[in-house]
Order: sequence, then C-alpha cells, then structure tokens
Amino acid sequence: MKSNCHFKIIVLLPLIVLSNRHSLELQTMSETSKKVILAYSGGLDTSCILLWLKEKGYHVIAYMVIIEDLRLTFLSSFVWPAIACGLLYEGKYLLGTAIARPCISEALVRIAKSENASIIAHGATGKGNDQVRFELSCYSLFPDVQIFKQPCVQPSYFIIQILAPWREKEFYTRFSGRPDLLRYAQQNRIPVSATPKEPWSTDANLLHISYESGILEDPATLAPKQIYKMTNDPLNSPTEPEEIEISFEQGYPSSVKKLKNNETFFTPLEIIECLNEIGGIHGIGRIDIVENRFIGLKSRGVYESPGVKILYEAHQELETFVLDREVSRVKSYLTNRMSDYVYNGFWFSPECDFVRNGILYSQRYVTGTVRLQLYKGTVSIRSRHSKASLYNERLVSMDMKGGFELEDAGGFIRTQAYRLKEFNRFKKEYDIS
Amino acid sequence: MKSNCHFKIIVLLPLIVLSNRHSLELQTMSETSKKVILAYSGGLDTSCILLWLKEKGYHVIAYMVIIEDLRLTFLSSFVWPAIACGLLYEGKYLLGTAIARPCISEALVRIAKSENASIIAHGATGKGNDQVRFELSCYSLFPDVQIFKQPCVQPSYFIIQILAPWREKEFYTRFSGRPDLLRYAQQNRIPVSATPKEPWSTDANLLHISYESGILEDPATLAPKQIYKMTNDPLNSPTEPEEIEISFEQGYPSSVKKLKNNETFFTPLEIIECLNEIGGIHGIGRIDIVENRFIGLKSRGVYESPGVKILYEAHQELETFVLDREVSRVKSYLTNRMSDYVYNGFWFSPECDFVRNGILYSQRYVTGTVRLQLYKGTVSIRSRHSKASLYNERLVSMDMKGGFELEDAGGFIRTQAYRLKEFNRFKKEYDIS
Amino acid sequence: MKSNCHFKIIVLLPLIVLSNRHSLELQTMSETSKKVILAYSGGLDTSCILLWLKEKGYHVIAYMVIIEDLRLTFLSSFVWPAIACGLLYEGKYLLGTAIARPCISEALVRIAKSENASIIAHGATGKGNDQVRFELSCYSLFPDVQIFKQPCVQPSYFIIQILAPWREKEFYTRFSGRPDLLRYAQQNRIPVSATPKEPWSTDANLLHISYESGILEDPATLAPKQIYKMTNDPLNSPTEPEEIEISFEQGYPSSVKKLKNNETFFTPLEIIECLNEIGGIHGIGRIDIVENRFIGLKSRGVYESPGVKILYEAHQELETFVLDREVSRVKSYLTNRMSDYVYNGFWFSPECDFVRNGILYSQRYVTGTVRLQLYKGTVSIRSRHSKASLYNERLVSMDMKGGFELEDAGGFIRTQAYRLKEFNRFKKEYDIS
Amino acid sequence: MKSNCHFKIIVLLPLIVLSNRHSLELQTMSETSKKVILAYSGGLDTSCILLWLKEKGYHVIAYMVIIEDLRLTFLSSFVWPAIACGLLYEGKYLLGTAIARPCISEALVRIAKSENASIIAHGATGKGNDQVRFELSCYSLFPDVQIFKQPCVQPSYFIIQILAPWREKEFYTRFSGRPDLLRYAQQNRIPVSATPKEPWSTDANLLHISYESGILEDPATLAPKQIYKMTNDPLNSPTEPEEIEISFEQGYPSSVKKLKNNETFFTPLEIIECLNEIGGIHGIGRIDIVENRFIGLKSRGVYESPGVKILYEAHQELETFVLDREVSRVKSYLTNRMSDYVYNGFWFSPECDFVRNGILYSQRYVTGTVRLQLYKGTVSIRSRHSKASLYNERLVSMDMKGGFELEDAGGFIRTQAYRLKEFNRFKKEYDIS
Repeated sequence: MKSNCHFKIIVLLPLIVLSNRHSLELQTMSETSKKVILAYSGGLDTSCILLWLKEKGYHVIAYMVIIEDLRLTFLSSFVWPAIACGLLYEGKYLLGTAIARPCISEALVRIAKSENASIIAHGATGKGNDQVRFELSCYSLFPDVQIFKQPCVQPSYFIIQILAPWREKEFYTRFSGRPDLLRYAQQNRIPVSATPKEPWSTDANLLHISYESGILEDPATLAPKQIYKMTNDPLNSPTEPEEIEISFEQGYPSSVKKLKNNETFFTPLEIIECLNEIGGIHGIGRIDIVENRFIGLKSRGVYESPGVKILYEAHQELETFVLDREVSRVKSYLTNRMSDYVYNGFWFSPECDFVRNGILYSQRYVTGTVRLQLYKGTVSIRSRHSKASLYNERLVSMDMKGGFELEDAGGFIRTQAYRLKEFNRFKKEYDIS
Repeated sequence: MKSNCHFKIIVLLPLIVLSNRHSLELQTMSETSKKVILAYSGGLDTSCILLWLKEKGYHVIAYMVIIEDLRLTFLSSFVWPAIACGLLYEGKYLLGTAIARPCISEALVRIAKSENASIIAHGATGKGNDQVRFELSCYSLFPDVQIFKQPCVQPSYFIIQILAPWREKEFYTRFSGRPDLLRYAQQNRIPVSATPKEPWSTDANLLHISYESGILEDPATLAPKQIYKMTNDPLNSPTEPEEIEISFEQGYPSSVKKLKNNETFFTPLEIIECLNEIGGIHGIGRIDIVENRFIGLKSRGVYESPGVKILYEAHQELETFVLDREVSRVKSYLTNRMSDYVYNGFWFSPECDFVRNGILYSQRYVTGTVRLQLYKGTVSIRSRHSKASLYNERLVSMDMKGGFELEDAGGFIRTQAYRLKEFNRFKKEYDIS
Repeated sequence: MKSNCHFKIIVLLPLIVLSNRHSLELQTMSETSKKVILAYSGGLDTSCILLWLKEKGYHVIAYMVIIEDLRLTFLSSFVWPAIACGLLYEGKYLLGTAIARPCISEALVRIAKSENASIIAHGATGKGNDQVRFELSCYSLFPDVQIFKQPCVQPSYFIIQILAPWREKEFYTRFSGRPDLLRYAQQNRIPVSATPKEPWSTDANLLHISYESGILEDPATLAPKQIYKMTNDPLNSPTEPEEIEISFEQGYPSSVKKLKNNETFFTPLEIIECLNEIGGIHGIGRIDIVENRFIGLKSRGVYESPGVKILYEAHQELETFVLDREVSRVKSYLTNRMSDYVYNGFWFSPECDFVRNGILYSQRYVTGTVRLQLYKGTVSIRSRHSKASLYNERLVSMDMKGGFELEDAGGFIRTQAYRLKEFNRFKKEYDIS
Repeated sequence: MKSNCHFKIIVLLPLIVLSNRHSLELQTMSETSKKVILAYSGGLDTSCILLWLKEKGYHVIAYMVIIEDLRLTFLSSFVWPAIACGLLYEGKYLLGTAIARPCISEALVRIAKSENASIIAHGATGKGNDQVRFELSCYSLFPDVQIFKQPCVQPSYFIIQILAPWREKEFYTRFSGRPDLLRYAQQNRIPVSATPKEPWSTDANLLHISYESGILEDPATLAPKQIYKMTNDPLNSPTEPEEIEISFEQGYPSSVKKLKNNETFFTPLEIIECLNEIGGIHGIGRIDIVENRFIGLKSRGVYESPGVKILYEAHQELETFVLDREVSRVKSYLTNRMSDYVYNGFWFSPECDFVRNGILYSQRYVTGTVRLQLYKGTVSIRSRHSKASLYNERLVSMDMKGGFELEDAGGFIRTQAYRLKEFNRFKKEYDIS
C-alpha cells in the first residue's frame, strides 16, 4: 500500500453520521484478481478486513458512507416512511440500525455495478442481524442471475457474491480477539486510535447509537452511565419541561416548532437534527431491551434515538386522533408485520413492498399537529389538532343528544348479547367447562 | 322515604376503592311492584335514579360495592389475569374501568338471583362503554331464558332485564342537566355534597381514576393540573429516583420489594397498594388518550393508574426476556384481541374465555424478577433475572463460538434470499411496478 | 291507486336478474306527506309494504332494480373486485347476496337524492343480514347530517331515515304470517301469483340464488332436490367432463374460453353468463352452510352460485401460482377481514376501503391463464400459465443445482434450530410442562 | 456386508404404510468408527446411502418404520390432533407427508439414544422440505448440548449431528443421476426392482401419497392418469353416491359408519383405513397444487389423501355448526399459523406447542355427528347433529319472535352507523380520496 493517508482520514472520521460516498480505490492489482466492494466503516475491524482482502489478492474498493447525499436519501426514502408506518420492533426498538442497512446496501450495489464488481464484503459478525440485512438487500438489488434464462450458458460474471470474513474460518481463527486485530493493524501501519476499546460494540448513524455485546451481554447488568452519547441522563436533564409542536402531512413529518422561541424547521434533515438535539437534552429515547434476533438468539441491546422517539410518539398521537378504529386495527397488524420485515432485513422484499403500500394508504388522513412536552426522558401529549380527525366533539358530548339516539344503544347491546346468552345458556346446560 | 341515613353514609363513602357488598334493601313496596337491583355508586346520578325508580313503583335494592370481599376477587380473578395477559387498549389504556365492570356485574347478578329480582339498573350513560360492559356481563351471567326450551310455556320471570334510565326518554328529558338532578335531590332530601361538580366526570377504583367529558371533550385542551388525585405531577415528584423489584410466578405478580428499605409485599392487595403509592409519588401512570369507544365514537379520556402501569411494564420486561420469539408474536395477536374484548365488555364471552386460556398457557414460563427505576413519571428497567429465560449469554456472545457454527449463517441468508432474488429478477424482467 | 298495471308487470318479473331502474312514482299525495323510496322486489312482501306505506300516508316511490345499467355496475364495481380480492365468508359462502346490497343501496340513495326524499324503506326482516347491509350502506352514502356543522340550526331535512316495516310493531303484529299478507294483497287487488309459496325464502341475482328459513332451518334436513334452479344435480349432470380456460388481468377476469368449441367471452356480463350456464350444467357451486350472521345468530343457508364458484377457484389457482409466499400470507389475512366486512354490510366503510386498496395492490401480478375441468360438481385444475409467476422450474428441479447451493440448506436449518434447541434444552432442565 | 437378505426384504416392502421399527444393525466395524442412525426407506436412494456410509467408515444402523407400533402413535399423537386443529397448508394441502416427519424423527432419536449414536442420516434432498422437518425435529428432541452448561468441559458426545448426503458435495457429484445410483447398487449386489423408475418421486404413508419433481415440475402439465394409487379417477368412480356418518368427540374422530350396511369403525386405525378405502373408491382427495416450500421456492405437488380429506371436511362442517363466531375467527388465525409451523418442520417448537394448546381448548365443544355423501371426488354435507351446537332453530326462525326483539336490530344498526357516517361525511367535506 503506497499511501496510508486515506486511512488516517477515514479512521478519525466521526461514525455517528451517515454520510456521503467516499470511495477510495486502492492500488490496482493483477488483472486476474477479483474486485470487491467493501462496506468500510473506518474502524479497526473493516480496516483489517481491507488489508486482509488485499492480502488474499482481491482488488478492494472501500466504500464509506459519509455526509451529504445519502443523508437525504436515508431520511426521505427510509426514515420518513418508517415513521409514517409506525415501525417499532417488539414494542420498543425504533429500528435505527435496521433501517440504515438497506440504504447502505443500495449504495454498495450501485458502486458494484458501476465498478463492474461482483463481490461485496462487510464486517458484520456471524451471529448478528446486520449480516442478514446487508446480504438480503444486496441479493434483492442485484438478482441478475443469468443461469435461469439461458440454460446452456454459464453465468460467469453477474452473480453477486457476499464475502463476510467474520464467517470465514481462515479469518476468524487468525483474528480470534481484538489484540490480534490491533497487532495486525500495527504491523501494517494502519493508524488506529490509541484509546482502548470500550467493552461493548457500537453502531451509530443520523438516527441513533446502539450498544451491545461485551459487558452488556449480561441482562442483569445496567449499561454504564458514560455509554450514552446522544442523550443526557434524565437525572441530570433540565428541570424545566420544554414544549414543541410537530406537524405531519399524510403521515410524513412536515415541520417542528420549538415553542419557547417559535423557531421552526421544515426539511427532514433540519427536523431530525432539531429533535435529536432537543430530545437529547431532555434525556429522551434511551432503550434497554432484550430482543429476538432473526438468527434465533435473544440479545441485549441498549439504544438511544432521541429524535425518532419523539417523531414516533407524535405520529402515534396524531394517528389515534384521526384514524378510524377498524382501519387502525388492521393497520396495526400490518405495522407489526413490517417491523419484523425491516428488523430481519427484508426491506426490499415483496412482502415489505406490499405491506408498506397498504399502510401508507391509511396515512392520507394523518395530517395535523400535536403539541408535546419533553421532560426528564418523557414525551407527553399536550394537545392535538387536525382537520381530518374523526373525533367529533359535539357527537361524543354527554351533554348533547345531537345525532345520537340514546335508545339505540339498548338495541345495539341486546343484539350483541344474543350470541353471549346462547353460549352461556348452552354451557350451563351441557356442563362443558 | 322514611330514613335517609343510608344515603348519608353512602354518599360520603370514598369512591376510589372498589369495595365490599353493601346492599341496602329499601322499604317494601306493594306486592305488584317489580324488584330492581341498582348498581349504586352513591353519587348524585344514581341517588336520583334510585328515587326515580321508587317513584315509578319499583322495589329498589341498591347495591354498592365496598371494601373487603370484592377487592380480593377483583384483583385475583380480573386484574392479575389482565396483567398476565398483558392487556392494553389501543397501545395506551390499561383498562382500569373496563376490568372492573364484569366484577361488579358478577355481584349484581348474584344479588339479583338471591333476591329473586329480574331487573338490573345502572346509571351509565347512553353514549359510553360502561352500559355495554354492565349489560353484556349481566346478560352473559344470567342467560336463563326459558322460552327456547319449552315453546308453549311463557317465560314469565327469568329473563333478565336491564333498566338504563339515561337511555329512557322520560328520564333524560326530565333531567336534562345537572341542575335538574340537584333540584330533585334537594326536593327529596338526598344529602349531596355542597361542592360544585367538577366540569368532568370521574370513575375510580382500586386501580385507577378516569376523567372524561365536560371540558376534557376538547382534545386540544390540557387536563387541568388539579384533576389528578392518585399521582404527583412529574414536575413536582421527587428528584431522587427509587428502585423496586417485582417478581412474577407464571405471569402473576408475586411480590414487590422496595430496595431502599427492603420492605416486601406479597398479597395482591398489598402489592397494588404499595405500587399505587410509590407510583403515585413518582408521577407514574398518567395517560391522556383519544380512544375509540365500542359504540363507534372517538372520545378523550384522562387516566391515572400508577400501580397497574408499573406492573404492566414489569411484566413486559420479564416476558420479552423469557418468551420464545414466535410464541410472543402469536401471543401479541391474542393480547390485542383480548384487550378489545375486555374494553368492549365481552369479558364473559366465549372468545374471551378462549383467548385467555391460550395466553395463560404461555405464562408458564413467565417466572422471574425485574428491577425497575421509578423517576419523574417513567418506569425504566435496571435488570432482569429468570431461571426460565431463553436468553443464553454464552450462545449470543460475540466472543464465543460455542454452539454456533458461524458459517451456517451464510447458508441461512442465502436460502432466505432465493425468494427475494426470484421476485426482484422477475419484477425487473416484466417491469411491473 | 288508479292503475294497477304497474304491479302486474312487476310481480311477474323474473327475480333472478339484477336489473335496471324501474322507478314508478305513484299518485301524488297531500303536500304534508313524506316521500319514501322503497326497495321494491315485486314480491308479496314488498307489494304489501308498498300499500301499507301509502295507507300510512307516505308518498312512495317504488324502486326496482332491473336489467341493463345496474348489471354492468354490479359486475365491474362489486363482483370483479370481490373476485380479485378472493372474498369468501367462513370458508364457503361466496357472498352472492351480500355483494349485491351495496350496489342496490347506491341506486336507492341516488334516487332518494334526485327525488329529494329522505326516507328509504325495505322489506328485509329483523333477524337477517340484509337489513344491516342496506342500512349501513345508505347511512354511509347519505351522511349529510347538518347538525354537526352549525350548532344553532336545526337539521330539518337531510338526515336519512330508514323505514323497516318488519321491525315495526304495528306492521309485524298486523301481518303475523303469509295468509295475512295474501289476504291484504287480495283485498287491495294486488295480483299475486297463484302458486303456493315454497316453504323457504329465496334471494336471486345475476350471481346466485340463496335459499333459507322455513324447512331449511333444521340443520339436519337436506335441501329438497327441486329447490335448485341454476344448477343440475351432480348426480344427473353430464358424464363427460368439460374444459375451459379462464384468463385474468391483474386479478380481474378478462376472458373465458370453452375448449370444446373455442368460443371465447370477454365482457364481464358474457363471462358470468357463460360460467353460470356451463357451471350450472355440471352441477357446480352448490353450498349448504351453517353460517354466523352479523346479528349474532347462526343460520342455515343453501346457495347456488355456479359462475362465481368457478371464478373463485380459477383465481385461487392462478394466485398461488404467481404470488410470493409472504405476500400471500398477509393478503390472506386481509381477505378474511374484507370477507367479514362485506358479509356484515360494511362495503362503504373506511376499513373496507383500506383493505381493498391493500389487497388490490398484490393483484398487479395476478395475470395469466388457468385451464380447468368441470365435472360432476367439481372444478379441478388442469394447467397454469403466467409470465408473472415466481415459479421457477429450473430452480426447483431436483435434477439441477442451478442457482442453488445445496450445502446452504444445512446452514439454513441449523440456524433455525438454535431457537428450538434452546427451548427444548431449557424445558427439560426446568421441567416445565 | 455378510448377508444381503435384509435388503431384499426391505426393498420389496410396500412403502405406503407407515410401519413399526425394523432396526437392522449391520456388521460391527472398527471401534473408532462413528455410529449413524439412517432413516431407511428401502428405496434405491437410501440403500445406496447406506452402502456409501459404510464405505466412509460409519457404523450404520438402518432404521425403517414399519407396521404395528408407529401407526398408532402416528394417528393418535399426530394425525388426530392435526384433524382437530383443522390443519391445511395454503388452502389445499392436508400435510400428509409433513405430519409424518416428526413422528419418524421421534423414533430416530429414540434409537439414537438407545444405541448411543450421535449421528442421524437421511436421504432427503437439499431443496426440499423434508430435510428441514427431519432435522428440526431431531435437533428439538435431542438438544442436550452440554457446552452451554459447563464452559470448561468439552461436549464430546452429546451433540446430535445430521448427515444429509444429498447436501454433501462428495456424494452428489459422485451420484449425479439415477443411473449412477443403479450402477452402484448393482456393483454392490443390492437387489433393486427391475422396473424403470417413474419420472417423478413418491412419498407414501398411512395417510397419503405424494408425487413431485420430474415431469410434474412443469405446472402446465397434467399428472398422468396412472400416477394415482389410492384413488379412482372420479371419471371412473361409481355412479351411485354413498353416505357415511362421522362422529367426533372434542374434535377427535370417534367413529365412522357406512350407511349402506351400518358397519361402524371406532379405532383410529380402522377409521382411517375405512375412509381411505371408501374415499379412494369415490375418487376423493386428489390435489394438484403449486405450493411454497419453506426453503423459499415454489414447487408443484400432486397428492392423494382420501381418508384425511373426508375427515377434514367432516370436522369443518361440525365445527362451523358448533363453534361461536368470534372463537372461530381467532381459531382460524391460529390454525393458519400452525399449518405453516407443521409444513415447515416446527412440530416440536414452542410456538406449535403454544398454538396447539390454544386451538384444542376450543375443541371441547366439537362433539357431534355429520352425515356426508361421497360421489365423484366430492364430499358433501347431508346433515349435522350436535348437542353442543350454538345453532338455535327457534331463535333464528323468521316465523318466531322468541327471545328476539325485532326493534333492537334498528338500534344495533344505527349504532354501527355512527362511525361510518362520520367517516363519509368527513371524507366528503375534506375531499380526501
């Protein structure tokens, strides 16, 4: 490797932001070597993987997602739909990592196609969800397997292949722990930060930071206080609550207003950054969960996602205010399905496409504004406004008969009761218990 | 009415507690009059209804649920199963009122049978849920309609009848507002409290207090601060968090321990009272919701249910720790169904019985302890312990290969991908979008 | 009534066809009388109702759905979507009557608006489903209740009212049986057919005939052989099978071809008539069911719907051939929901609209042709063809490895097994059973 | 191999019956070799696998399921519960093969334990469902992986291992087609039947025969007439229909009576054999399906399962007659889930256990008798009888008012309509479409 300067820059890059393409094509190797697109985070693992791949004779193109372009795509094509669909995994996890994977995969496949490469490599482990998410996304986006079309011709070039070193025996036996990686990095003059690794692993993007493994694997151990980077501890957050107003257009966040100074934000990027900041200040969006991985294991995760947490709650409040009851029952079923799909890596699947279309149809009515209070880790509703709400104050009012014949309820109840009477009468008679 | 002393006592009784039977049989009337069991709360409405029924010639037995016995039944037969089943209506409401209705109805029917009465009256309004819950429960528990068995004989006495004055034109036109009721009470020397009625209505029991209607009907109006009676405002709650440990046996709460003094409680009554107190101190369990009534209207409710909120969260944490993923998916479907059944008044229905049995089977594994922190309106998890958990720290650990062949994940993913590749390949080919 | 000629014509009209508007405005009555649109079938019941309404001082406009226009609307706006959505109630009933009710209601409301009438009357009974279907449809299509908009103004004219004589005490006590109706008809010179009424009731339209009540109420009694009008008894149907080909475009039937003579039909009307005829010949589409009415009762119905049965089976075959597995799981859930909605009369509800949109999105792929054999009451598949199918013969073939790494399945299975091993190991250890 | 007589016997055994243990321990090999339990069908494939395993130095115990004992276990522990649960995969497939796999696996694991063997081998292919079903069952039943309990001790013996030669490169490259297998068999003096292999593969047991692959892979090709072994072609089946009566006790088949001679059968084995025979005569239970394999592929299967088809239909008829509507909705959801579990090989999973318990609770009411007609491939209902039915003839009768207040239906409908009116009024107003 002639120049290490790329690596210096990369390794020191903040990992919290999802960011624009930074494709560094390393030295050209022999013509016979295969091209690999490596999803490169700049951390110790992928830096070592990069070297190892070159050692193995691959021509490696390290792809790093940095700032400008992907952030907009990420928010408008992935995060905003996820908010509109109300995604939440196992009642708690806001899918901050999961939703980023198909976005990154889209970029990887784009590069692979433009570079005429057919191998994509990543540094995800063999027990986790991310390997599944990256790979299913890549396989979906790059399915041009020619073999099925012309039986006699060999499909020599266009079958996508995934290279996951952490599942390769040669790799994981050589690098059985962090010291091995550090030694390898030093031997190869990869500048890595001197700070000792934290005893857990981290993934960060525009939406959230996740922490898992290491000392967090014990479900009886509290995450250490210093782990959190996006949010204040509610114990130390401001003692004064703060109010904001969030508006939605057809389920999509359209603006955020801070009520203390009437500052208002409209673009997805402004909105998420504003909410991350203000949510972080008030200690909002910390989650400690034991979740079920797709791979069949239970794992413990600690997350902080202040902005998305606020958007999720705001959207829920508005939605229950405007949506019809029965629509909301079916939508809730679809939302649960889609949350599983996205968690499991099936963003680009037919079922995710199907369900997303279904849910978004219901969002035509989810237009309006909610006022929320942020305080000590909680988001609470202050008021709801919507022209599209089915809430009818006059109709529901106890003090008015308007449009409602009170006697009708009797018939309604007695009719519902026939079935129950029959069942209970019968049960008594035949003594089935 | 010769003696008013009953009423004095009754009206001054605290309404917050669900309580033991207090059946006061009023003066015997002419032999021809019909006997009515009135679900009597002691408030202005049911006091007036009591008089009005007597005026109409009914022989009224006012039944009031007060302290000892029903509280145990309520907790062990209704609340504990609801906790084990994880009931939650529309993602927010813990069903504090709904779960009490079948319990009260059971008592009403028991009295009706022992008193040989075939009419049950209540003071619930004609637009609400409670009328449905009372009546469906009574019809279910008292379905001895003889007509279907012997076609020729008239079923003269054993058809239960419900008398809901607020749905009777004669009643609601005579008493079109609170002043009418007050005047009627004074004219009949019913001692009612001098305090002016609050501009909302209240229902209270051992679990919670609900507030609705009146000024709360405007969904853009915040509930006034003074409305809450069981919980501190989180803004004024202690600045020091407090920790507790809750244990469950097969899904049922079995003990609560305060960690600051190791005080521990075991009986359902002690547990709920301890949690109501400590939860109330820390401002836990306030809910402001726009919910969908069974009757088809949206209505706004404000609730506080500190103890049940803590139990709900504790149970959730333990359950996701111990339950298998796929079991938990199906259970979640059943829980949603059952929450609707209970909210809608179908506690005694065949479907509720069916679903409850199903869910409780999953609870054989929900045994263990969670440690929780209470602070400023939030309940957060500190640690989980269970011998029955499927969480396997050694298996999930990134640092160990034990029991897990890393290469297998590749086959897992590639196999999942066939379907996706086919779909996306095909989609591209035939250009269906 | 000056002229009875209308009635003669009407009563003799065949009831099997859904048909064009036949609105006969009867003599003008006093200005004060109310206008009623009566859903008029021409049978004894609605003829008597017509007279009775006039007797009561109403200005009656009898609306009869006859031939041309509604048939096309019925097929294209109601039946074809129902086929594409795969609707089936309780696993058997093809909703032949249910699907016609919203179509008729649409016409009734259109007439009511054009005639400035605010009352709609129908002859459906008080225990059945049709009352619900008619009324919910009318209320949905005519919801212009002004009261909610301007609180001070009385909503004098635009609240739709339903008049259901069979639920009116005055009516059903006066006409307690068929002899009463016959006598009333004769007294009023309504020409009714001399044939004695069959001991069951019938509803017929372009799709099907239903038979219920009377002697059919005994679920242990077989429907008499002569009851069926659209289909041969399979025992007497041709001993030679017949083949047809049905094509679909995006879930909608697009053509039917008889293979014996290559005769092909393309319009909805031709298609349904062809299939009714050919299906009828081969004894297809007879159903004998005990179903659950919305009103809470179980009832027994006997149906024949030859054409729709064939379309249903054909669509199913094509759909399982082309649809992705996971899409089809979710679609199946939605289809079950929608079948209930339609059966219960909620065609114009928000939930039906929501679910229909969702399902139809999946139908973009349901394009292709199936060949079917009709024989002795059965429809059986002969072959499927579709360019849009995910079925990949080369991929699935046992004889080819193409695109499929056989070793991968091992990893797939072992990964699936982690969860099961943990569960069973754990279960054994802690002896929970 | 000293004696080949075992093989002769085995290969000629009829494959249609599921049968008792026939464990032939082959010659003892060197002490160091590993013991393998081979699921041995006696066909060409497993015979060759047996030899190949011995060649590879394994000590092979060929296990063959033959007659007596497993048949009873199979029926009472697997098939009868499947009938009571109403299992059906993708609306058509009665799971005849799938339900046998866990039963066979149970036996394999029992032998493995008693023989102290830790390897189980089978001849299922690498693209099919059976590999998954065998292996998940074995892993579930044999999860004694010690590694997780005592970290320091190596788990030397009790990890079950699966050996699937058709997924082993060495095996499938050596035996790339049937001729290779035949040659290998001849070289090793395995007597195989002289008849040329049919161009499809077959699996048969007490319940059914399945046919797939080979010429059947083309979904546009009809299965050849001679393929079917258990059923007559309906075109050639008797022209006289036949009636039978089937009784159930709590969802389980309890007797079958032939009405033509009143012959009655009570044991599971008699029942299934009687129904297979009579159903086969009348051409019942043929299925031609394109189904979705767990592995992600669509495949085409042709099945015949006469007895189970009749039991399925009989159970459905009785169930819809007796079960409450809402119970049946939830049960239907559970049944769909369980059908997928069983098809995919998860019989011994926690979710299958959970769902089965739930469903069976509903079967307490499924007691009664249905009379059915068998004719030309169809099963049709003649009558239903049950003391436990919620069907109430008097209540539903149009001619009786008994127990039903007709006016109530008006209130029922108007109350249901509030939600719809609001929605449609609002939709019109805000012009959302």
